[in-house]
Amino acid sequence: MKYGHGGDIYTYRNMLDFSVNINPLGPPKRVTEAAKRGVELASAYPDSQCRKLREKLARKQSIPEDSYIFGNGAAELIYTLVLAERPKRALIPVPAFSEYEQALRTVGCEIMYHKTKENNFFCIDESFIDELDESFDIVFLCSPVNPSGHVINKKLLQRIAERCEDLGVRLVLDECFVEFLPDPRKYSMISEADKYRQLFILRAFTKIYAMPGLRLGYGISSDSELLETMGRMRQPWSVSIPAQEAGAAALDEDDYVMKARQLVAGEREYLEAELYKIGMKYISSDINFILLYTEINLFDAMKDRGILIRNCENYRGLGKGWYRIAVRTHEENSSLINALRDIGSRSKNGN
Amino acid sequence: MKYGHGGDIYTYRNMLDFSVNINPLGPPKRVTEAAKRGVELASAYPDSQCRKLREKLARKQSIPEDSYIFGNGAAELIYTLVLAERPKRALIPVPAFSEYEQALRTVGCEIMYHKTKENNFFCIDESFIDELDESFDIVFLCSPVNPSGHVINKKLLQRIAERCEDLGVRLVLDECFVEFLPDPRKYSMISEADKYRQLFILRAFTKIYAMPGLRLGYGISSDSELLETMGRMRQPWSVSIPAQEAGAAALDEDDYVMKARQLVAGEREYLEAELYKIGMKYISSDINFILLYTEINLFDAMKDRGILIRNCENYRGLGKGWYRIAVRTHEENSSLINALRDIGSRSKNGN
Repeated sequence: MKYGHGGDIYTYRNMLDFSVNINPLGPPKRVTEAAKRGVELASAYPDSQCRKLREKLARKQSIPEDSYIFGNGAAELIYTLVLAERPKRALIPVPAFSEYEQALRTVGCEIMYHKTKENNFFCIDESFIDELDESFDIVFLCSPVNPSGHVINKKLLQRIAERCEDLGVRLVLDECFVEFLPDPRKYSMISEADKYRQLFILRAFTKIYAMPGLRLGYGISSDSELLETMGRMRQPWSVSIPAQEAGAAALDEDDYVMKARQLVAGEREYLEAELYKIGMKYISSDINFILLYTEINLFDAMKDRGILIRNCENYRGLGKGWYRIAVRTHEENSSLINALRDIGSRSKNGN
Repeated sequence: MKYGHGGDIYTYRNMLDFSVNINPLGPPKRVTEAAKRGVELASAYPDSQCRKLREKLARKQSIPEDSYIFGNGAAELIYTLVLAERPKRALIPVPAFSEYEQALRTVGCEIMYHKTKENNFFCIDESFIDELDESFDIVFLCSPVNPSGHVINKKLLQRIAERCEDLGVRLVLDECFVEFLPDPRKYSMISEADKYRQLFILRAFTKIYAMPGLRLGYGISSDSELLETMGRMRQPWSVSIPAQEAGAAALDEDDYVMKARQLVAGEREYLEAELYKIGMKYISSDINFILLYTEINLFDAMKDRGILIRNCENYRGLGKGWYRIAVRTHEENSSLINALRDIGSRSKNGN
């Protein structure tokens, strides 16, 4: 099967990787240490209920323990949820993370695409509500949006959640990047999970704690039947012990998260200012990656300079010319900008 | 969801765990170290193709690289396979590992059970071939059998594989415990995977390398379409980096595996001799666990003595009175035998 995501450092070796959207600070030392302690404990099966992690996360987020389901990365939960729901008809705003679509295809679901507008940062607007009706079984939203990095207004999310309640449509809200926002609470719907039974919120440790190789994500829902059905759709031991230990340790890393948010905000501002100076079109982002457009074959040009970026051509609703870059450390971002400048000037000179 | 397996040390804390069937030597030091190095690499996504592990395993087993699929434990692959096949009617000899049944239920498959006989060590015999017909889409076999530990004759497996080829029935052969046999090649079907397109062999690193907490299993099949379809049924990153690194390192541990086989053979002999002396009924095993029968409530009696054993009451085809114990180190096995002796004598005295 063709690999259609960023982060493929196994095909493109020894490159500076801007194709994957993880915390530029790298994993907190104590998280790495906890994962290693988890390795020492791995002669036992993992706790199928992730009890330690569950208790700690529930306390931190003030959400009931039984509202959580943990997964081998958030990606596993997308597939498990679709299996549990067996939707016949789905609505996805595009461009979007392709795994929603891939998961829906495993149950033969018909998928309708709502095309978002470039001039609205590829975010949904009021027109999305008009399109919702009872013919749909499930809706996948993502906020902040991957690949544009733009956050959806919470009032709009609330109105959609209410509409989904009325219609009996399952609403999946992917908040995997929400922790990169300066104040996630202003945008996250987790505190309202108990209000909307149709709402399933997807979260990941992957991005904000820079641990994609360990695989840890979670879902929040007040629909206990849904969580019970999801539990029956997969093996009991899907979350490894190193992942559970790393996750529990990560929850103590508030200072690290604050530091990451500050770094990302400053560096994103730097990158956007430089892109503007270069004259490269980009979508203004709220988080740790930026979507840009150019007619240059940027993927290859950057690859030649040892930099891996995400070619977004395979995103439904984008097409040729769109690329995504991560926000990394200042030194790395400078290298990226220098490479872009070099490519731009050569392109103008017809080279 | 109720947890129905062994190894639940999170509910039963600080117990000597005989309920789970892993290598009594514990994980090899170099495997643990490799997993920790994997943790250090975990700020990247895992290789979705497990290339390093795949190449090494293929070379070791002399099987083409593209005949492998890797999973987050063998358990994940059971679910993925069922999703890829969507069987309508399945045949399972019982007693058997309950995840086969659980996975088949996710696609609403009708399941027929072939009851194996206690006097044939709960193994299938010729009568199983007679029961096979084209009404079935899939068959799940396990050899050595969980929970009896007895191995199925290879000639019989070959005849079943041929019959499944003729009938177009998918044959899943779970060999997760085969490495505990003194000479696995005498019983394993992996060298014949290219001969039988219907054959899917399931293997795990979990048991023989004592790493259930890391989650790593694999499947072997010469049906490339099946493997391709399975790839579409799940996320691309299901095998974590620590698991991939541990697996690659484990393949160098032949001496450790030999040592484990010897330990297990000697200790199983010891345990069976002692069970015979105590007068407790057991099924003669070929590997690292023993199924036994008693009218005493052995689970609770052992629990009171700080020992966790597997109550096999929930195995379809067994029922009340059956328990499974792992073969562990001599000191641990002695403790188990002492506890059994104590329970036996108290029971005779009416206490």
